[in-house]
This record gives sequence, C-alpha cells and structure tokens, in this order.
Amino acid sequence: MTRKQIVKKATDRLRKTLGNRKVITVGDSKYLASFDSSKLAFDYAALVVARSDEDVGVVLKLANEYKVPVTTRGAGTSLTGSASPARGGWVLDVSRLRRIVVKKEKAMAIVQAGALAKAIQDAAEAEGLFYPPDPSSQKYCTIGGNIACNAGGMRCAKYGVTRDYVLALEGFLPNGERVSWGGEYKKFATGYNIRDLWIGSEGTLGVVTKAVLKLLPKPEKTLTLIAAYDSDEDALIAVQKLLQEGFFPAILEFLDKRTIYCAEEIAGVRLFNHVSGKPLLLAEFDGSANDMPKLALEVSDWAKRTSVAFKKARTRAQAEFLWETRRKCSGAMFALGDTKINEDIVVPLENQVKFAKFLDTLVKRSRLPIATFGHAADGNFHVNIMYHRDDDSEKARAKKAVSDLMRKVMSLGGTISGEHGIGLAKTPFMKVARNEAEIEAMKAIKKALDPNNILNPGKIFDVYEVWNHTPENVTLPWDKKRPKGRRTLPDYLL
Amino acid sequence: MTRKQIVKKATDRLRKTLGNRKVITVGDSKYLASFDSSKLAFDYAALVVARSDEDVGVVLKLANEYKVPVTTRGAGTSLTGSASPARGGWVLDVSRLRRIVVKKEKAMAIVQAGALAKAIQDAAEAEGLFYPPDPSSQKYCTIGGNIACNAGGMRCAKYGVTRDYVLALEGFLPNGERVSWGGEYKKFATGYNIRDLWIGSEGTLGVVTKAVLKLLPKPEKTLTLIAAYDSDEDALIAVQKLLQEGFFPAILEFLDKRTIYCAEEIAGVRLFNHVSGKPLLLAEFDGSANDMPKLALEVSDWAKRTSVAFKKARTRAQAEFLWETRRKCSGAMFALGDTKINEDIVVPLENQVKFAKFLDTLVKRSRLPIATFGHAADGNFHVNIMYHRDDDSEKARAKKAVSDLMRKVMSLGGTISGEHGIGLAKTPFMKVARNEAEIEAMKAIKKALDPNNILNPGKIFDVYEVWNHTPENVTLPWDKKRPKGRRTLPDYLL
Repeated sequence: MTRKQIVKKATDRLRKTLGNRKVITVGDSKYLASFDSSKLAFDYAALVVARSDEDVGVVLKLANEYKVPVTTRGAGTSLTGSASPARGGWVLDVSRLRRIVVKKEKAMAIVQAGALAKAIQDAAEAEGLFYPPDPSSQKYCTIGGNIACNAGGMRCAKYGVTRDYVLALEGFLPNGERVSWGGEYKKFATGYNIRDLWIGSEGTLGVVTKAVLKLLPKPEKTLTLIAAYDSDEDALIAVQKLLQEGFFPAILEFLDKRTIYCAEEIAGVRLFNHVSGKPLLLAEFDGSANDMPKLALEVSDWAKRTSVAFKKARTRAQAEFLWETRRKCSGAMFALGDTKINEDIVVPLENQVKFAKFLDTLVKRSRLPIATFGHAADGNFHVNIMYHRDDDSEKARAKKAVSDLMRKVMSLGGTISGEHGIGLAKTPFMKVARNEAEIEAMKAIKKALDPNNILNPGKIFDVYEVWNHTPENVTLPWDKKRPKGRRTLPDYLL
Repeated sequence: MTRKQIVKKATDRLRKTLGNRKVITVGDSKYLASFDSSKLAFDYAALVVARSDEDVGVVLKLANEYKVPVTTRGAGTSLTGSASPARGGWVLDVSRLRRIVVKKEKAMAIVQAGALAKAIQDAAEAEGLFYPPDPSSQKYCTIGGNIACNAGGMRCAKYGVTRDYVLALEGFLPNGERVSWGGEYKKFATGYNIRDLWIGSEGTLGVVTKAVLKLLPKPEKTLTLIAAYDSDEDALIAVQKLLQEGFFPAILEFLDKRTIYCAEEIAGVRLFNHVSGKPLLLAEFDGSANDMPKLALEVSDWAKRTSVAFKKARTRAQAEFLWETRRKCSGAMFALGDTKINEDIVVPLENQVKFAKFLDTLVKRSRLPIATFGHAADGNFHVNIMYHRDDDSEKARAKKAVSDLMRKVMSLGGTISGEHGIGLAKTPFMKVARNEAEIEAMKAIKKALDPNNILNPGKIFDVYEVWNHTPENVTLPWDKKRPKGRRTLPDYLL
C-alpha cells in the first residue's frame, strides 16, 4: 500500500470509531483548518473534531498504529505555521473542549485545552482573581495553543508567560496513552518534569486536553501612562532607568518612531496636543489602592526627568484609548506593504539601545519600512517588516532583512523568538539560535517520545522556506482592519 | 578488562588531565562525599573537584567514553540519597564554583552551581532585591542542588519554588557537550524547553554549571503571627478560610499537635501564657508599608474568628523567636526516636482535613510518634515518622507507615514528594505515584539524553530499599541538635 492508501484506511477506521460528525474529509471547515494565521495551507486527509478527552486517545492510538501525522489545533491563531498540517494526515481540533472551572479557595482554574484565553481571564475575574497572560489574540486563541507555544503578552513584564501559570497538564502521549504531569496542587518533585517540556513544544511531544492554572489576587488599582521621547534610544534609556530605580511595571510597551508614524499619520490617532512623531513608552503599573498615590508621584517624576511629554490616563476610558492606539499600529502598517513579517525577537535589556541603532541600519540597508513595538521590560520586541508580495525586489530584501535580524539578536545575547515559537517560519534560524548539541538533544527527546514522528511533523527541526510558498488569500477573524491606500515612509524615517 | 579496571584506567587518565589536586581517591573528603544527608554511603572510585566549567566538560567526556558513573554534588544536603554515588564511579563536586553576580537593573543574579542559596539571598538583598526560595538548609545547600531537586521552602506559599526563579541554565550534556537553555532574558520560545526538564531531574540528565535567576523587589514590610487551635482539623479549616477570603500569605506553616508537644515539652518553648498543647499556624504576610495596617487588622480578625489564641510579633526579635520555634521542633523529635523519616508529601487543599484524620489513624495503627508540620498553603507537609533503628518491630512498623502514607496521599489527589525529590529513598513509590506510561516516557527521555546511563545512575527509576541499609554514624553541619534522654508521647497523642 502507498502512504496515501494507508492514511485512507486509517481514516476509514477512525470514521467507523468516532462517526461522521467528528471525522470531516470535505468542506469549508476542513479547508479552514488547512492553515493557521500564517495562512500557509497544506493538503491533508481529515479534520477530526474531538468532543471528549477519550476521542483524543482514540485518534492518537490509531494514528500511531498507521503512522498518520497528527497536527493538534485550537483556534489557529499561530503566526508561525505551527498549527498547519505540514505533512498532511489528520488535524485534531480540540477547540470544542472548552470547560472552565475556577476554584476560588485554591486560586486555580481547571480548564480544557480549547478554552479561550479571554474566557479564562473573565472567569477568574468573576471570582476576584487574575489570570495574567494576555497574548494579543486573547479573544480568539485557546489555552491549548497558548501552552503549545508558551504564549506571552504585554503583562509578561511583571507577570511572566503562560508557563508561569501552568500547575499541571493532562493529556496523551503520541501512542495514545493517557498521562498527567502534576495535579491540583502547587508543588511536585516526583520524577521528570514533562509538564514544562510539553509547554512550548508546539504540539510535537504530546496532546494537552486539560490544564490546572494558577491564579493570582486581582490588583486593586492600575495606573496607565504614555511618555514621548526624542528618539528611540532615549525611550529605551528611560526603560533602563525605570527598572534600575526599582519600579516594577505590569506592562511597559515601546513603540518606535515608525510605529508612531503609522499610528498618527495612517491611523490618525492624536496622542498629545503639542508633540507628534515621537516614539513612545506606554506603561501600566498596578498595586494596592494605598500604594497608588505615592507610586503615581514617583512615576510622574521619572517621566518628567526622562521624556519630552507624558500624560497619565485619568479615567478607564482614557486608559482604554491608549491601549487602543497600541492595537491600531499593527493594522495601520499595512498601508506600507501588503505583507507583514512579525518577528518576536528578544534582546537583553543592556543591548536594547544598540538594537534600536541596528534597526535604523536595517531600514536603510533593506530600504523597507520596518516598524518595531513590543515588550520593553523583558526585551521581547515585535519587529514588523513590511513589503509588497508581488515586488520581487522587496521580497528579496525582506528575506535578507529577516536573516540579518536573526543574526543580530543572537550577537546581542538575545534569541529569535520570545513568544511565537518556531513552527515553520523560523526553522531556517534554529541553527543560528542553538548549537548543534542543543538541537541534537531536542531531536533525541522528540525521537524518544514520538518514535513514529506522528505529532506535528515538519515543525521546529525541518527547514521550511516560507518564501517559496504563497499564503491563502483569506481574512481571519482576528486579522486587523487594513487601511485603504498605499503610503510610504517619509525620508526622515528611512 | 573488568569494569573496575576500566574505571581505574579512566580515573588515571582523568588525573593526568586535571592533576592530583582535583582528582582525589583517598582520605576524609572522599569519604564525606560518599553519602548525602540520607547518610547512605557507597563505594566509589574518585572525588573530582571542579575548579572551572571546563573541568566539568572534561570529566563528562571521559566518563562517557569509559561509561563511568558520575554523581554531581553540591553540599550534599539532599535527604533522599540523590547526591550519593549509588553506582560508584566518580563524584563530581561543583561546590567550588560559587560566583554570584547581581545585576540590579535587570533584577537578575548570575550564579555558579556551587553558590549557596543563602549567599544568593544576601547578595540580592544587598541590592534591594529578593530571592524567595528558602529551603531549610539554605545556609548550606547550593543552588545547583536546589535546581536538581527543584527545592522549595516556606515562602513557596506565595512565591513558588526554585523553578519559578530560573531564567536560564548553562551546563553540559552527559556526553560533555556544552549547552545553554535560555540567557540573560526573561522569555524564549526557541525549541524545546530543556531548562525545565533539567530542573528537578536530580542530576540525571545534565550537569548545571551556571544559572540566571530572576529576582523580585524586596517586600517593604512583613507581619508575623501565630494562632493556636483546638485540633489539627480546626487549624487546617482556618487555612482554607484564610485562602478563601483572598489572603495571600508569604508563609503559612502548620505545626500539628505532636509537633507542638515536641516544641513545648521537649524543647521547652513557651508560646502562649495560658494555652499549651495546641496545634499552630505560623504565618507571615508581606507587602507595602501602606498596606500593612489594614492587612494587620484583617489578619487579626481572621485569627480571632478561627483560633483559640493568637499573637502577632511586635518586633523583629519576637518574629525571630517564632521562626526559631518552627526550627526547633525538628530537632526535638529525636527524643521520640533516634531515626527520622521526613516525607515531604503533597495533599491538595480540599483534602487537608481528611489528611489530618488519616495521620491520627496512622499513629494509632503504627504505634509510632509521627509529627507533621509544613507548608499548609501549598499542601506540602513534612510527615516525620520517628523510630528506633535497633528496634526491629518499630522499624517494620515505620516501613509500613511510609507505604500507607504514600498510598494515602495519592488517593487524596496529592503526590509523594513536593520538594525533596525521589533519589533513592522514594524509588519504591514511583509506581504508586505515576502510571506506567508516565514512567516509560521519563525513562525514554533518560535513555535519549544519556544513552550510556552515566549521570547519577540508580536514582529515580531503580527500586532501592533503604530499609536494607545502615546509614553512616556521622553528624553533618546542618544536623539539628538532638535532645538528651528518651521520651514517649503521652497517651492522648497516640
């Protein structure tokens, strides 16, 4: 039998076991699961919609027997192709498993893999608790996907990433055996910690069906402020000062001069009356009501000393306006190019100023609009390289710019991904980021836990050249609204 | 050649490479490294004292070539035998690698594996920062050992375990290749997370030489209080109330009635004027100076509602007296038996009252003094089973009690170790705690990363019966002072 015939036979058996409703081989829903937010689509045999944990076990047992590739999927918001069925086979959709139970006295949430990040936050908040991780796709993305790529978000500055909130995982090994790593408790030292090995492994080592999440007390008050700087470097020096002085912001976002251009000139946002075109820091501090007045004074003092203009949000609505600005930049960039490469690199604090200088060089060298914003307190920036897909010269320059960027962040002591993961998109750079011994150790683990290589094959380790493939022309629910018309950056930003 | 000859040849080669000063085959220092705090000693070929990271690579390359077992060692405070050379070979002492660099603006400490936990805390504090993990052996134990067993301590209630503070690790694979997992930054999503797989793997998967630790701002104020209860159950119900009401104690220690007997009647501590013999909660809250007055009122209110007597420490000295009491219990227990089995089990919050009832049954059934104290907020209790080693009947009952205990905590949804790890001592219970698929997955990882099984062989997976072995009769620097004379528990505690 050919591979195709074997997969067909396995799919027929799967359909007999799970029924037609759960095993889908034609139609829109199958098409929509052939790609993730990277929009790189692949042919595959069947979409399997799990309605229970047990379904997951059934799928994996059979997949392992017939060596059918299985790509587990939540909402498909991944930007790297990690949720795309790169080697065909089955897409295992766990988004219907979405139960959330908050246990207030334990400050824990017990959630199924398909629960939405935002729904978990809301459920925690309803009990006066707090689930901090806030990836920008939080209204759409599932906790299973968050765990698969160890998602971050803006609040990582103070609160850390998804990993920091996962107390336990339940799920299945590639052979369909049910396992759990941890339980409804906070500590364990009982053999190897496969929980944290699964987190961030992009669905290549096991399938998560349930997680126990740690929740925190909800901070009483927040304080939101923006501060404008004469240059990107000045803004990043102010970040260093803030942290050196012992402030501990919940959020500290940097928006560089090109991002601000997009916000002000393309999205039409006006942030200050007398100042424009200046890079920004957008900060949120949280704490007790008692501490806020003093903190507000100290933060104002820092802003006065470091910025050319700043303002605090006096109301919830004003704060929301500032966050809305942060969100708008991302969409506005599409006036500068129809295609965006969003690289979520990491640069250690002490090299952020150097990095800002490098970005200017990169823009000059590539002659492309590159707008950068992101999480300054933990050095995790989103470098957005914009180009026009049909322009071969721009495309070649974008490719070169990505490669230059990856090498630069490594030479600055950083790394190539802070929260998106490798998927397909970053596979060419694994060798830039990790030495051979490290990669070999990872591959050995993959082989040990998934000897038939059925779980999400083709990701992380096999080099895939996104440049040779054309993304689907579709609009996804979380796609930002694109501005009309085409713009170019003014000379002073090039 | 026999194994012994091969190991001798390898040792000769090692001595030629590293010199006599670093490769020690006779004498006291070699003897003292033949066991850890479990005092179970093993024959082995050579103690190797690393003076640099590179030494570690040299040792492992040679060990891997000749298949010589290597047991990495810090201070040897482990209670489970995890730092003992169970299969002979070489003991690799990394305690000389003890550099600590605190980077204030990044709130990070860069430490070598042999740095003492307490020294790291002190270095952080000198910069106004805070390294929370506080295993009770903190003055002696090394960060390398803390990482190996994912050490906890009292402050885990609020601040989590060692794992929660490790941003990056550097070290060597069993084949001697140098690797690093993470860097001086807070986020990465660049391939598998072997950092957290190493943490808690008890030196069986790699050797850590350096760690990047996350530091926190130091809390401005603390509030210490003890509260006495009519019964162990009442105390644990008060714990649940406290957490349900949204308090977030930094420390919340439970001392059961038998522990209190040891403190009051054996160590001679007087805690209250009018109340004695009552189980206690010992709590510490921390926060900002502004928040403390209100918090103190609220905490007092909770104590008034739940306890029969309570008092707050009004001075640092009073607080220190309370902590000293907590420390004294452990030593006082030796009046009840010359041998202590300290089991660091975990029970989920909702089953702690049931667990207290079980402990009474266990005492009745075993006719042994069993005193329990520990970290109530995270359900990680130290169950201290005391017996006389030369009394065969007591020994048999102690063995049975351990086995009953392990099964009970699993049936209550807990686990067999919260912070000590498996080592040798808990190996008989791995199968009680984890299912076959889980253990097979762990073993597959071990085989993948250490195909020659050189790193700390005999631990975690191979069943070892501590009962068949006699510990060394030595006093270690961290051993608690033992009381004179022999005591038995009064009838009402049996």
